[in-house]
Amino acid sequence: MTIVLGDNQYGKAETHLVRVSRDGETHRIKDLVVSIALAGDFGASHLAGDNSKVVPTDTQKNTVFAFAKEAPVGESEEFALRLARHFAADFVSVHRARVTIEEHGWSRIEVGGRPHPHAFASAGAERRLTTVTSTKDAAWVVSGLSDLVLLKSTGSEFWGYPKDRYTTLEETRDRVLSTGVLARWRYGRLDVDWATAFTRARGALVEAFASKHSLALQQTLYAMGSAALEACSDLAEIRLSLTNRHHFAVDLSPFGLENANEVFYAPDRPYGAIEGTVTRDDAPEPGLAW
Amino acid sequence: MTIVLGDNQYGKAETHLVRVSRDGETHRIKDLVVSIALAGDFGASHLAGDNSKVVPTDTQKNTVFAFAKEAPVGESEEFALRLARHFAADFVSVHRARVTIEEHGWSRIEVGGRPHPHAFASAGAERRLTTVTSTKDAAWVVSGLSDLVLLKSTGSEFWGYPKDRYTTLEETRDRVLSTGVLARWRYGRLDVDWATAFTRARGALVEAFASKHSLALQQTLYAMGSAALEACSDLAEIRLSLTNRHHFAVDLSPFGLENANEVFYAPDRPYGAIEGTVTRDDAPEPGLAW
Amino acid sequence: MTIVLGDNQYGKAETHLVRVSRDGETHRIKDLVVSIALAGDFGASHLAGDNSKVVPTDTQKNTVFAFAKEAPVGESEEFALRLARHFAADFVSVHRARVTIEEHGWSRIEVGGRPHPHAFASAGAERRLTTVTSTKDAAWVVSGLSDLVLLKSTGSEFWGYPKDRYTTLEETRDRVLSTGVLARWRYGRLDVDWATAFTRARGALVEAFASKHSLALQQTLYAMGSAALEACSDLAEIRLSLTNRHHFAVDLSPFGLENANEVFYAPDRPYGAIEGTVTRDDAPEPGLAW
Amino acid sequence: MTIVLGDNQYGKAETHLVRVSRDGETHRIKDLVVSIALAGDFGASHLAGDNSKVVPTDTQKNTVFAFAKEAPVGESEEFALRLARHFAADFVSVHRARVTIEEHGWSRIEVGGRPHPHAFASAGAERRLTTVTSTKDAAWVVSGLSDLVLLKSTGSEFWGYPKDRYTTLEETRDRVLSTGVLARWRYGRLDVDWATAFTRARGALVEAFASKHSLALQQTLYAMGSAALEACSDLAEIRLSLTNRHHFAVDLSPFGLENANEVFYAPDRPYGAIEGTVTRDDAPEPGLAW
Repeated sequence: MTIVLGDNQYGKAETHLVRVSRDGETHRIKDLVVSIALAGDFGASHLAGDNSKVVPTDTQKNTVFAFAKEAPVGESEEFALRLARHFAADFVSVHRARVTIEEHGWSRIEVGGRPHPHAFASAGAERRLTTVTSTKDAAWVVSGLSDLVLLKSTGSEFWGYPKDRYTTLEETRDRVLSTGVLARWRYGRLDVDWATAFTRARGALVEAFASKHSLALQQTLYAMGSAALEACSDLAEIRLSLTNRHHFAVDLSPFGLENANEVFYAPDRPYGAIEGTVTRDDAPEPGLAW
Repeated sequence: MTIVLGDNQYGKAETHLVRVSRDGETHRIKDLVVSIALAGDFGASHLAGDNSKVVPTDTQKNTVFAFAKEAPVGESEEFALRLARHFAADFVSVHRARVTIEEHGWSRIEVGGRPHPHAFASAGAERRLTTVTSTKDAAWVVSGLSDLVLLKSTGSEFWGYPKDRYTTLEETRDRVLSTGVLARWRYGRLDVDWATAFTRARGALVEAFASKHSLALQQTLYAMGSAALEACSDLAEIRLSLTNRHHFAVDLSPFGLENANEVFYAPDRPYGAIEGTVTRDDAPEPGLAW
Repeated sequence: MTIVLGDNQYGKAETHLVRVSRDGETHRIKDLVVSIALAGDFGASHLAGDNSKVVPTDTQKNTVFAFAKEAPVGESEEFALRLARHFAADFVSVHRARVTIEEHGWSRIEVGGRPHPHAFASAGAERRLTTVTSTKDAAWVVSGLSDLVLLKSTGSEFWGYPKDRYTTLEETRDRVLSTGVLARWRYGRLDVDWATAFTRARGALVEAFASKHSLALQQTLYAMGSAALEACSDLAEIRLSLTNRHHFAVDLSPFGLENANEVFYAPDRPYGAIEGTVTRDDAPEPGLAW
Repeated sequence: MTIVLGDNQYGKAETHLVRVSRDGETHRIKDLVVSIALAGDFGASHLAGDNSKVVPTDTQKNTVFAFAKEAPVGESEEFALRLARHFAADFVSVHRARVTIEEHGWSRIEVGGRPHPHAFASAGAERRLTTVTSTKDAAWVVSGLSDLVLLKSTGSEFWGYPKDRYTTLEETRDRVLSTGVLARWRYGRLDVDWATAFTRARGALVEAFASKHSLALQQTLYAMGSAALEACSDLAEIRLSLTNRHHFAVDLSPFGLENANEVFYAPDRPYGAIEGTVTRDDAPEPGLAW
């Protein structure tokens, strides 16, 4: 028996960059958390502590900040492409560079009904995501969003499921449906209007959640995924991970009260976890995208 | 030497209630995390395990759910008043009941440009707060907000401070100012239009942050507090706790680049913590409000 | 009506210091998160942005690091006393300095059964706490611990409580009792062997939790507090905040199974919150300790 | 173009089970957070809301609690095997069941120097992990640990790396090395003494971290993985994800002080992320283990 090194990668995670751009009096900000992972010819570092091919993670961090000055950051996808291609192209030892960006949104504050030129409020917990993977020859872009939380107070049922000796759940024709959305979609091409594509995909996900009468969160997932693919032809595939944030109607009968789906308690755990991929049948191969 | 029991209180914390109200097709939701703390004649439980005066925390939780059905929840302040007065009035042993509510906001989803009747998206991390304290004779209301995060990309200076042997900070005439806001204001009366007062106070805080040219976060704090008191005569006093979320300009000179306040890194810790009270000189006594 | 500035303080929060001490081959580490809050003559900064009396929080941070080199850190209480007295004594504008330290513990790794001279593993989530408050004339020390989580699988009852129309809880003569402990004790003097006092107080809290047959978490709280005061005469007063981390026996009867307090589910929220102070009747006045 | 459903799975996540076992006076507790994911013939639920093959996640939760009573829980691996095989074998529609358990440890409290029969203290933040994947014919076990945090105050170097125009890091022959460990190892067989294997693998990881003089965290990773494989022949493969928790020596020169690797600040972000697999060259195929 011999012990051998298998797959490996390394990089700097969670470099928090805030980029301010000035267009005269009016400022814009991009608030990005950038994580980098490099795979390649790094066996000597593992086996012998020979770092002659190891781009320090500190250098990776510096590169993020320098790149944010050397050219406009643009959309997260553009910035991630620029970074990933740099590491894959400029270092012989790097065979695959992956750059993941979480973007935090800011809304412009209104003062006296007019947008303020340089004051902003955090737009909330939702994050826009992108992951770009680059080799020396090719690149792939996966974008998405996380921490989007949705709720329908009706228009959701759950019944017709198999019962066994451990089943106690009552069937229901009306329940609250709430979900935390993690969506990641793979683009089938690189010449995309990233901002527009994001807006369309996000809008389709949210509208489908609201509009689709739901017999199962699985059905809602498929409707959301299909809607995103239909709304934006640049998307080849979408992977959705939806938590089922249970809202249980409280039994008020001990207090002589009825509860017609009005009073709910919302436990933190356990929760349902529904995951699925929706794809075009003619989608290009994913390559190293994921 | 004798050992004695001092101040004490107990209650059920963080009961998560979601209340759905139906106005025909159109639903509204209130998403509240309710915490209760009772003080009173509970020495026997501490000293002898005699619980004959101890309203179980489980009963407190049940009361939250039952009250949400027995009458309209209304604004958080109204619901907290109803709960706090119940515990203080209906149990001889309870001398002081305090009910704290964190309200999580939801925005109505738009579908095809029109608000959906029963689908919502989480409005973000910000929380609306209220704490009501009630004795058998009186009640006090403190409301506020937390997890509001603001940022100005210019319009902030910091200079003129004392230097000692441990000072290395450079003075600056232009910096990013970002703060996480915890605001709690005491109402001077109980016949308040709670929703309007909240909207006015919050608006004043945000506008003052944006508008006030800042020479110190302390100065911004005072401006924010003053603006809230001026915007809403129901407020007697406001207490602000502002984190100074540092944004440091990255030194890009090793890369031959200038950084004219464009590229920042934003560390998580340490951070500044600025706390202050702004009050009317004719404010009524706070009593047990805090 | 005039608007006026009330109580205020500011400082640098959560400076994370790791201090390595070398005793020949054998190293020791102190891992401290230090927060500083200064109160004093800072009205001009709030009202006019005049910072001539405002010791920058950046300087406060530097002072933490410099002080960690200029003299041995010692116990957290000693380090906090040194820092707090410096700010109160050396700056005319500072009337009261408060330094809070959270200490994270590390255990020495054993290799081949022998303690390693310079390798450590994190000792867990529990934190040792101290808060020192200093004026120009006096100082007070409050120490304690947080994030200590305890559980008894039997030896806990809860019954004899009042019932009202919202009561559904069944009385029990046997339950799981689990609590997250936040303990803060005030020392009655400053010439204390801090490490020994901490060890004694913590030991007494834990042993009392385990040994005391419990009729209420309130009773356990008082027993824990009394035990700490008895174990260490340096303690004047102790304030305990205990969460009641409910463990509910699962109803297994739908599956034809009995559950004799063997199978529990442990929800995150809501939880009970029991707070109380235990004190000596001859304790010195607290002054500005809290 | 047609839109199609791709890979999907669903289940109940994070059911928190606490199991008390009584051996006369002496109690033992197992504190487990159980997550279940089922893959199989669930297309009809996605496409048409037909749930006739969808085992409700509520039933999955019930099964966890019932199984904890019907037979001894045993080691996490045994419990996960029992659950995973049940879902894969007893439901035609389930092609693959995956059960992941996070185990939280508890230490017995000592009272008067003797272990207490039924009182425990939380053993800290570290978690023992297992993931069992079962089809109708086969099963795979991956175990591991998370949230183990290690630190060496010397015995770590980093130099010899490539420099480019973005490199500013100084080479060092002596630094603090601290890492948060996520380790997951695949067993090559199912007839394993799980408790002993865990103890050996964990011990080897910790001892290797302490003992290996480190020229790179990559080198330490490989040493840790190799040591685990050597310590326990049941392990086929180990995957390590190590964060590099930077400790930077503070520049004390502005204060006229030297800092011979004694005073460090420890930022939260960014951090290094080093991932690698160490495997036996004759390891059995992983199948569906990961």
